[in-house]
Amino acid sequence: MWEKKKSMTKKVGEKPDLRIVILAGGSGTRFWPLSRRKKPKQYLSITGEKKLIEQTLDRVKGLVPYSKIYTVAVAWQTQRLKKLLPALPEKNFIVEPQARNTAPSVMLATACVYLDNPEAVIALLPADHYIREARLFRQKLAAAARAAYKFRKIVMFGIQPVSPATGYGYLHSLPNNFKTLHKEKFYSVAGFKEKPDLPTALDFIQSGEYYWNSGIFLWRVDVFEQSLRKYTPELFPAWLKILQALEKNDRQKLTKVFRELPAQSIDYALIEKVRGSLMARGDFGWSDLGSWSSLYQFVNRDENYNVFCSPLVSLDSKNCLVLNPGQLTALIGLEDVIVVNSRDALLVCRRESDQRVKELVEKLQKEKPEFT
Amino acid sequence: MWEKKKSMTKKVGEKPDLRIVILAGGSGTRFWPLSRRKKPKQYLSITGEKKLIEQTLDRVKGLVPYSKIYTVAVAWQTQRLKKLLPALPEKNFIVEPQARNTAPSVMLATACVYLDNPEAVIALLPADHYIREARLFRQKLAAAARAAYKFRKIVMFGIQPVSPATGYGYLHSLPNNFKTLHKEKFYSVAGFKEKPDLPTALDFIQSGEYYWNSGIFLWRVDVFEQSLRKYTPELFPAWLKILQALEKNDRQKLTKVFRELPAQSIDYALIEKVRGSLMARGDFGWSDLGSWSSLYQFVNRDENYNVFCSPLVSLDSKNCLVLNPGQLTALIGLEDVIVVNSRDALLVCRRESDQRVKELVEKLQKEKPEFT
Repeated sequence: MWEKKKSMTKKVGEKPDLRIVILAGGSGTRFWPLSRRKKPKQYLSITGEKKLIEQTLDRVKGLVPYSKIYTVAVAWQTQRLKKLLPALPEKNFIVEPQARNTAPSVMLATACVYLDNPEAVIALLPADHYIREARLFRQKLAAAARAAYKFRKIVMFGIQPVSPATGYGYLHSLPNNFKTLHKEKFYSVAGFKEKPDLPTALDFIQSGEYYWNSGIFLWRVDVFEQSLRKYTPELFPAWLKILQALEKNDRQKLTKVFRELPAQSIDYALIEKVRGSLMARGDFGWSDLGSWSSLYQFVNRDENYNVFCSPLVSLDSKNCLVLNPGQLTALIGLEDVIVVNSRDALLVCRRESDQRVKELVEKLQKEKPEFT
Repeated sequence: MWEKKKSMTKKVGEKPDLRIVILAGGSGTRFWPLSRRKKPKQYLSITGEKKLIEQTLDRVKGLVPYSKIYTVAVAWQTQRLKKLLPALPEKNFIVEPQARNTAPSVMLATACVYLDNPEAVIALLPADHYIREARLFRQKLAAAARAAYKFRKIVMFGIQPVSPATGYGYLHSLPNNFKTLHKEKFYSVAGFKEKPDLPTALDFIQSGEYYWNSGIFLWRVDVFEQSLRKYTPELFPAWLKILQALEKNDRQKLTKVFRELPAQSIDYALIEKVRGSLMARGDFGWSDLGSWSSLYQFVNRDENYNVFCSPLVSLDSKNCLVLNPGQLTALIGLEDVIVVNSRDALLVCRRESDQRVKELVEKLQKEKPEFT
């Protein structure tokens, strides 16, 4: 087994053996009532004809062969993923025993690749983001993979903030401390700050040294293992157990490890603790589609800046967002209102309050779970 | 024929032979998207379980026998009315050759009753209003019928204004100039003012001498005829022709008369021109249901004054009106917004703009008539 790994390492040489891992197990609620427990955001077609998960795959097409693209999700989601992404080999659909936030998912996916090639580089992609410039994205991803391989660092993409958003994680990178590879600058990451308050977010923007954490990470799997041992030693035994379970194909053991792992994000569990990571600028038209307002740029708009993807008639209304397929929507005297109609539920929401959709869904989960 | 009429007059004596005429041919658009061309307001059940037209009939039950209750409407509406009001005799469904506003309808209905008894009193009732206190209404209607009979005047109900509404017609009545009959005061009407501007409406309210025109009128049919001859002589030939057409059962002639009549309201064509009419106070909980906001008092409300007749969940929202049967509605951060969902169309409207629904429907009639 170790023999095999070494021979593969030699084959790839300086060009890394890049594997794409799509984190497809998300269960976001911010697009309620379109998104539901059994239909999370990655299965919605909100920015185009294809579902976000399909767009995520299309976006990396050509960068690596399908045999090197993986998804990671629980069983019921995997069933759906197999239907939506038939180009991927059966074995590349990595099945989590249960949903425990992203750290366990990422450890599992990284372990799967590790058993194939411990010097491979993983690019971890969220399944439900939007990226406008796919070609530029592929170029930057290729450069970042080389950097991750060569510099043996965790590499991440930071997004230049366009607003003092308080819902994001921020990366602090030093503008004069960078390495260049394939014309791409990789800045040293000096620290992280999750969900700052508004004054702090404003300071961040003014400083020019802070970037939104895009959730796109790259690492050599051996570097991931070393980082885990060094920065999160309490998780290292679980990592070894996952490797053992995979080698023996022991699902029961894997289930047990998952049950014992804390349900943490990989950001919190590992990435924010690692020193010396690198950041490239993700200037490829990124959006995490984190709220209804984020859709504003993707749909038709009329002369009053009402955006809509269904028939609309309006009087004295502007800056509204309307998704009401199959019906005519009429607006009178409204400004900055979001209207979304989906099956059994209708949402009408002030635009500036759209971050509260999550809170609404939590309320519904208690009071009327059939609508979540 | 004249012999017969006189004998009937004797029989009724001082107690008038009251006939109820329900003006059922309306085609209002203010409750769009619930109301449509083929489903005007009188066929909606917006203030209770029964349709407004059914409520209108129920409200006068017991005041007169069904044989003395009439509807007037065009043929397709009459078909529907017969199904909804099976208690009425077939011949009491008066069919207009075409919809030409209320003056022709009223002339036709009055002529029908005239041929039966020219001293009968007609109470003209809109089919799509709301009256909270039905019993009081019947009492007042009976008193008004006696006044109309005895004083030989057109009698109308005026509504004490609760707001300086600019969409109503106002009656000017002199507080110290009244007759009393059956404990009811009948004030002299000094004049009319249709749709005043806001400063005028405010003056009206302050004066205490102005009332909203409820659209409920009573007259002896012979007084109607005399008033028409005196105050609207240009319509008098049409009145005679209608009588002739009815006597000969000549639908063709009736159709021709209707075609030639101006499409005017009875208020404009006659009532506002007549001198010496009387007004009683319509303090029986009246609403003309003239807009979505007028429904505010009829449906459930939550602790934030959101009113709704379908499942509702809200965050930080108040004073909204929601009619969205069959769906859950979720509101976030909204105030004073009306949401009405009906079949193929959804209306979202600022409450203060609800008078513009009419304008919206006019726009739709040009651009998307299938939704009207």
